[in-house]
Amino acid sequence: MTEQIRIGIVGYGNLGRGVELAIKQNPDMKLDAIFTRRDPSSIPSAVQAYSIEEAERFGDAIDVMILCGGSATDLPEQGPAFARMFHTVDSFDTHARIPEYFEQVDAMARVSGKVSVISTGWDPGLFSLNRLLAESILPEGKEYTFWGKGVSQGHSDAIRRVNGVKHGVQYTIPSEEAVNRVRGGENPELTTREKHIRDCYIVAEEGADQEAIAQEIRSMPNYFSDYNTTVHFIDEATMKADHSSMPHGGTVLRSGKTGENSTQIIEFGLKLDSNPEFTASVLVAYARAAYKLAREGQVGAKTVFDIPFAYLSPKSAADLRKELL
Amino acid sequence: MTEQIRIGIVGYGNLGRGVELAIKQNPDMKLDAIFTRRDPSSIPSAVQAYSIEEAERFGDAIDVMILCGGSATDLPEQGPAFARMFHTVDSFDTHARIPEYFEQVDAMARVSGKVSVISTGWDPGLFSLNRLLAESILPEGKEYTFWGKGVSQGHSDAIRRVNGVKHGVQYTIPSEEAVNRVRGGENPELTTREKHIRDCYIVAEEGADQEAIAQEIRSMPNYFSDYNTTVHFIDEATMKADHSSMPHGGTVLRSGKTGENSTQIIEFGLKLDSNPEFTASVLVAYARAAYKLAREGQVGAKTVFDIPFAYLSPKSAADLRKELL
Repeated sequence: MTEQIRIGIVGYGNLGRGVELAIKQNPDMKLDAIFTRRDPSSIPSAVQAYSIEEAERFGDAIDVMILCGGSATDLPEQGPAFARMFHTVDSFDTHARIPEYFEQVDAMARVSGKVSVISTGWDPGLFSLNRLLAESILPEGKEYTFWGKGVSQGHSDAIRRVNGVKHGVQYTIPSEEAVNRVRGGENPELTTREKHIRDCYIVAEEGADQEAIAQEIRSMPNYFSDYNTTVHFIDEATMKADHSSMPHGGTVLRSGKTGENSTQIIEFGLKLDSNPEFTASVLVAYARAAYKLAREGQVGAKTVFDIPFAYLSPKSAADLRKELL
Repeated sequence: MTEQIRIGIVGYGNLGRGVELAIKQNPDMKLDAIFTRRDPSSIPSAVQAYSIEEAERFGDAIDVMILCGGSATDLPEQGPAFARMFHTVDSFDTHARIPEYFEQVDAMARVSGKVSVISTGWDPGLFSLNRLLAESILPEGKEYTFWGKGVSQGHSDAIRRVNGVKHGVQYTIPSEEAVNRVRGGENPELTTREKHIRDCYIVAEEGADQEAIAQEIRSMPNYFSDYNTTVHFIDEATMKADHSSMPHGGTVLRSGKTGENSTQIIEFGLKLDSNPEFTASVLVAYARAAYKLAREGQVGAKTVFDIPFAYLSPKSAADLRKELL
C-alpha cells in the first residue's frame, strides 16, 4: 500500500459508527477524524473527534468526508456546505427530493472543484442500480420492490407516539405469496396490502388498555390502515433481548418478456443483520470511488448511476478482468 | 426520437436472432444489416443480409456492430478484426482467455479510434458485476456462484458423443440444500459434488444398451464424474416437446461479515426462459453504452466494469435520478 485514502466522518450515530467499523476492513483507507455536533470529548472512539465547526481546517488532511447525518434536516444543510470544502459521500434518501438535492450539491462541488457522491446506500443505492440495470435489459417488463424483513424507523416512531406505548418496534415483512407470484413470472398487479405485512412488538405502560392500543395502531392512516398489521405485547426484557438489533433487507425483481413469449426474471436481494453497518459499507466503497474520480480530475455531484463498478474496488482494472470477469 | 442508433449483427445463430428481437423492443435503435458467413439469401430475416466480407463497406452506415459468433473460434478472429472498423459489442466468454482477448481488441480499437465492449452477457457480464460489487462492499466474505437450472451446451455435446446416444440434453441444477446453506449465512465449504447436480435426458439409438450409456456418462471425467448425475431415457417425441427450449439462470451470492459479527448477504439471481434471448438483450443495452461512450470521444476496449449503468439506458441522467434512484 503506497498511500491510504484519508477519511473523515461527519456525525457519529449508528451510521457513523458503522463507517468506522467498515474502514477497518479496507486496508487502503484510514479514518483520520470524526466531526460531531456533540461535545467531542463524549465520542466513544479511539479516533480523535472534533466539533463540526472545526472541519474546515482539515481541507488538506482529509481526502473524503463521509456524511452520516439524517436526510430530514442534517444533509440538506451539510451536503452543500461540505461539498464546498471536501470530496463527499452521503446517503440522502428522501427519494422525492433527490433531484433538488443533487442540483444544490452539484452547484457547490463545481465551484470548489470537488466530487460529491450523493444518495448511496441500498435504497437509494444498490436497489436503484438494479432497477436501472433490469429496466435497460428488459424494457418490456414490470418492476417490483419488496422491503424487509426489517425494522422501519418511521413506523416504529409512529407506534411509540400512541398513548400507553412504552417501547415499540415495527417490522416490515414482504408477503411471501406476493414475492413467489412475481418470481413465478405472473406479473401480478399487487395492492399495498398484498405486498407487505406490518408486525409490531410493544411494551405497554402498566395498566394500559392493550386492545385500544392495537386498535389505534391498526387504523392509523398512511402508516398502518392500508396493511395487514399484527400487534404483539411483550415485556421489557423480551424487547431488549429479541428486538434490539436492526436487521433489514429486501428484493428488487423485474419480470420481463423477450422474443415471442419468453419470461425472463432478474432478482437482486439483501438479507442484512445490521442495516446501518451495511449502509456504512456501501458508503465506504463509494468513498473509494469518489477518491478515484477526483484523481482523474472529475468534479460535481455523482450518483451510483454515474460510477463504473471498477471504481469501487482497490484492485487494478487488469486484476479485475482476470479475477472477477 | 431524433436519431436512431444503427446496429449491425455479425453471425445469425440463436444469439443473432435474439439480438434482432431485442432491438425491436428498443425504439432508439434500428437493425440495418446482418452479416453472415452463410449464403446471405438463406438468412430468414426481413433485414438485408450480406456476406461478412462486405462489412467493411458499411463503415459510415453502421454505428455499432454486435458480434454474435462463438468464443472458441469466431470471436478471437472477428473481435480484433471488427474493432479495426467499427464500435463493437461481444459476449466473449472463455474466462481464462479474457485478459489476452482484451489486449488484442484494445490495441485494434485504439488504432481505429473505436470503442469495443467485450465479454458482456450474464456470465461473464451481470454475474461479474455482482461479484465485483459484493466484494467491494463486503471485503470480508465468501462468494458463491450457482448455475442453473439450465441447459449446458458443453455437457449436452459431451453426452451426444457417447456411443448409442441419438439425442441428448443436459441440465445443470444447483443443489437447493447448498444454496439454502449459503443464504442462511453458514459460509460452507462446498465441494463440486455438493454445489450442482447434472440431469441428462437421452434418446437412445434402437437396440442400444441403456445401462452401458448411463454408466459411461456418469463416469466421464471432467464433465460428470465429480457430480451426482441422473440419466433419463425418453422417446424422440418427448425430447422435442419438453426439451427444445434453452432455459438457464443462476445465482451469485456473497455472504460477508461487518462490525462485531453481523452476517450480511447480497444475492443476484436470474431465471431465464431463453438464455440466448436474454444474453442478446444484455448485448443490445451495452451497444447503446458503446454508442454513448463513442460520442464522448472514448476509445479502446471496455468491459462491464468500466461502464456506468446510466449509459445502458435511453433516459437522460436527470430522468434516471428522478424516476429510478
